[in-house]
This record gives sequence, C-alpha cells and structure tokens, in this order.
Amino acid sequence: MVDFSDLVSNDNVVFKSYVFWSTILIVKTLFMAFLTARQRFKNKTFANPEDAGKYKAKVKYDDPDVERVRRAHRNDLENIFPFIFVGFFYVLTNPEAALAINLFRAAAIARIVHTLVYAVVVVPQPARGLAFFVCLGSTLYMAFKCICFFL
Amino acid sequence: MVDFSDLVSNDNVVFKSYVFWSTILIVKTLFMAFLTARQRFKNKTFANPEDAGKYKAKVKYDDPDVERVRRAHRNDLENIFPFIFVGFFYVLTNPEAALAINLFRAAAIARIVHTLVYAVVVVPQPARGLAFFVCLGSTLYMAFKCICFFL
Amino acid sequence: MVDFSDLVSNDNVVFKSYVFWSTILIVKTLFMAFLTARQRFKNKTFANPEDAGKYKAKVKYDDPDVERVRRAHRNDLENIFPFIFVGFFYVLTNPEAALAINLFRAAAIARIVHTLVYAVVVVPQPARGLAFFVCLGSTLYMAFKCICFFL
Repeated sequence: MVDFSDLVSNDNVVFKSYVFWSTILIVKTLFMAFLTARQRFKNKTFANPEDAGKYKAKVKYDDPDVERVRRAHRNDLENIFPFIFVGFFYVLTNPEAALAINLFRAAAIARIVHTLVYAVVVVPQPARGLAFFVCLGSTLYMAFKCICFFL
Repeated sequence: MVDFSDLVSNDNVVFKSYVFWSTILIVKTLFMAFLTARQRFKNKTFANPEDAGKYKAKVKYDDPDVERVRRAHRNDLENIFPFIFVGFFYVLTNPEAALAINLFRAAAIARIVHTLVYAVVVVPQPARGLAFFVCLGSTLYMAFKCICFFL
Repeated sequence: MVDFSDLVSNDNVVFKSYVFWSTILIVKTLFMAFLTARQRFKNKTFANPEDAGKYKAKVKYDDPDVERVRRAHRNDLENIFPFIFVGFFYVLTNPEAALAINLFRAAAIARIVHTLVYAVVVVPQPARGLAFFVCLGSTLYMAFKCICFFL
C-alpha cells in the first residue's frame, strides 16, 4: 500500500491530480448556488417569504427553471462527493499513475459538462446521460478496486 | 495519536475496515439513482420535460413512489457522508479495534437495511427508524470521541 | 508540503482545529433531522403515509415550516461538506496556523449562525446571507490556495 508520507510528497502526481480535480469540482458545486439565485431573480420566485417580500416576488416551490438548477445541484451532491471519497481511498491503493489521472480528469470534465448541458444551456439527451455515466463509471471502477484492495 | 504511516500499513485492520464499509455505502448510495429511475419509468413520471417527452411520460414533482426513493437517497446524503467524514477522524484517535470495526459494520448494515425497508420493500415502522438511529448513534458516538480527542 | 506524519502529531494545531470544527459542523448537520421532526410533529405533516397514519397526521410535501428546515438542512449539505473536503486539502498546503485556524473557526461559527437565523428563530435578512457568505468565502479562499498549490 502507498505510504501517506509518499502521498503528500511533491512527487506523487496521482495525489496531486486527485486534489486538483476534486477542488475544481467542489468550486463548481459551490457555484450552483449562484445559478439557482440567477433563476430565482429572473423568474421572481423565492422559497422564503422574507426573500420574496424583499424583491417583490412570489413564494413558489415548483418553478421549472429554478427546480432544474436545483436538481443539477443535488445531482452534484449525489455524485461528486462519492467521487471525492472513493478517489481518496483509490489513491491509497497505489494505482497506475496514467490510469488514475485520466480517471480523475474524465470524471471531473464529465461533471462540468453535466452542469452545462443540464442547467446552463439545456442540451437534449443523451448529453446529460452520457456526462452522468462517465463520472459514475469512474467512481464505480475505483470503488471496485478499493473493495478488492481493502477486503 | 495514530501515525498516518501506520494507518495505511496492511496491518491496520481499523483503517481497512473503515475504507471497506465506507466504499460499500458509497456504492449503495450511487445505486439509489437506479432505484429512482426504476420508479420514474414504472410510473412514467419525469422531472425534466426533455426526458418526459422522450418516453411519452408526464412532468411531475410529487409522484409518491418516486419521491419516496428520492427521500431515501437524500437521507443517505444526510447520514452516510457524515459517517464517512467522522469515521476517518475517529480512526485517527487510535480506537480499540474490535469496537471500531463493529461500529463501522453496524452503521453500514443499518444503512443498507434502511434502504431496503424505506425504498425497496416498504416495511412498516419502527424498522426504518431503528435503522436510522443505529447509524446516527454510531456517528454521534465517534463524533463525541473525536471532539474530546482533538479539543 | 506538510508530511502526514506531522499532520497527525499532537503538535499540529492546524489539523487539530480542522478536525474539531469539522466534527462540530457534522454534529450540527445531523441534528437538523430533529429540527425537521419537531416541525413535522408540530404541524402534523409527514412525507410518508406510514408515518402520517401512525400520528393521525396528513401527507404533505409543501408545509412551509417543514420545508424551511429542510432547505436549511440541504444548504448544510451543499456548504459544510465542501468546507470539510477543501479544509482537509488546505491543511496539506501547510498554511500559516493563525490564519488557517481562524478560517475554520469563522466558517464553523457562521454555519451555526446560519442554522439559527434560518431554521430556529428566523431572523430577517441579511443575517442569513451574511452567515452563508462567510463560510462560502472561507471555502473558496482555501480552494484557491489548494488549486495553486496542487496545480
């Protein structure tokens, strides 16, 4: 098993790539709050009466544009956090560097594409489905490797 | 405090157990997406108009079967991710191995049972409540130990 | 880069502070379930028919008091988990101790305030917005540092 001391040395390119892409995905997830806010202001739809009152808007839980961004955001929580957890364990299995780095890269880019086609420009299927499955496949592959390794 | 180098050595049974059960729970959480999809196809109810159009289904946010699985999924995010975070910190407190491993095992099995009785076969209460509290109790116990240790 | 072996030594005050505040925030997040339950019993509104039947209550997905607590809870998942992920990576960049500890402390206290003003006593804006942005700003600052460091 890879030693944690090696892990955090400047030479461990797998761990560096893992932290880099995980942080990019976290920042992306955090920015979903602004995409939601943009839709709330555009459609004058808020979930809290105190916000709606302030902006002379209505309280509504089912505005299609707002809910679309919120579903994209929730989908991030459901998929990006598992990717980050499992990616950390996977780094500890001392994987082949090129494979591991490409898995992280593919998953991260797929999640960025997922947001774009789901909540920004709304591209027809199968764009969203494909982006979803690239990250899911990457995470499940890493999970499988971890389960075998840590059994 | 346990040294990270010990942590990732093959002999650290606590850390191995932690990673194993955490990964199992992550995979379980990821599979909730398929349980939701199954209900969406069964009840022909989708949240996105582009999906509904493709499968000649309706757009609806409150189908009881779909929402049940989505609540189970959200409950996973609310409880499994905290378990994985706190479990990692708890491993660092160098806990007694048998206790720690049984805490991980109990929490993980409880969450699997939670999904079964909530979103798969729908068993009457208190099955769901008991499964919920076993994982919550395990996480809160570990959190208490961590707060004392890292204070 | 900081060595993991240093990280978990008793002298690393940054890591200790990180674990302490992260655990506090996880416990806070877990307790949101009880705040939701309190509103469900008060307003006799449940999401599952088996729960509603047991307490002679109604099944409803849009009770304003229940949904307010659930939004606060979801906001925790969206912001506290990213804080914990990025905080861990940030500790590895060997940050200046006083700055790092105050970032953790500010973010954690802000999230506790967020819950109080959103879901417990309902204080008018900008209380909730300010609390939200303190944690978000802290996380984004740490993320920026991590991206530069691990690039």
